[in-house]
Amino acid sequence: MPQKLYLEDLAVGQRFKAGSLTISEQEIVRFARDYDPQYFHLDAEAAKSSMFGGLVASGWQTAALTMRMLIEGGAPFADGTIGAGGELAWPRPVRPGDTLHIESEVIKITPSRSRADRGIVTFKTTTFNQKDEPVQILTANLIVFSRAGRQ
Amino acid sequence: MPQKLYLEDLAVGQRFKAGSLTISEQEIVRFARDYDPQYFHLDAEAAKSSMFGGLVASGWQTAALTMRMLIEGGAPFADGTIGAGGELAWPRPVRPGDTLHIESEVIKITPSRSRADRGIVTFKTTTFNQKDEPVQILTANLIVFSRAGRQ
Repeated sequence: MPQKLYLEDLAVGQRFKAGSLTISEQEIVRFARDYDPQYFHLDAEAAKSSMFGGLVASGWQTAALTMRMLIEGGAPFADGTIGAGGELAWPRPVRPGDTLHIESEVIKITPSRSRADRGIVTFKTTTFNQKDEPVQILTANLIVFSRAGRQ
Repeated sequence: MPQKLYLEDLAVGQRFKAGSLTISEQEIVRFARDYDPQYFHLDAEAAKSSMFGGLVASGWQTAALTMRMLIEGGAPFADGTIGAGGELAWPRPVRPGDTLHIESEVIKITPSRSRADRGIVTFKTTTFNQKDEPVQILTANLIVFSRAGRQ
């Protein structure tokens, strides 16, 4: 079990790595049927004529898989990884058979003015494919609780 | 079939509405098992002691369901709804039984300097619950193709 992290345990510049996982064509199509039914996520043959030149995963699936890697192996925040929002970029698509991993960094720590038990942590997570090319950059604002606030 | 929209068909201030859909506890738990396995998304009883006071959907599921409503009934972009990235905020959680709908607005249109066949459209989509409270605000940068560029 990894150590559980409170606000006091974090410092700007701290880094975490997690993953990897490999995404199949079947998983791409299944997610697309439920949440993003566009032809370049559903049909490998039809997708050849799209701007992607072949089947690609929904960006929201890349985001969801990034979250899974964060929860399973990223920074183990004591009260959970709770996002208030953030910025997201998808510089290139994820394709069937790609193997993804993540690298995260603490960018900024802002203790709450109104609530002593928490702070906002700006947490940047880059998702890479097997060629170490970034496929997603997520700069999230996380609500992280303090050890002091619970005592 | 709705009209297919090219870059020339869009104007700042244009609005679109879509939805609704209702999310069940079962769907929340299933998504969480696959992508966001945290106790406040998995276990209604345990979630009572979380900051949410009960089971809530992963923000990524709210994002994915918003995408589904966009694709099924939002703005019908001619070559698909293709996001390069954007900003995301989750002002309040989605709970089992919530019924969601979306309202979108064209915020900015930036024709590409290097490629005559496309532009970037800043497209804001707010997801509301049945009390008309925003649960997600997504300001996405979409790649939208022009009719002129294909001729």
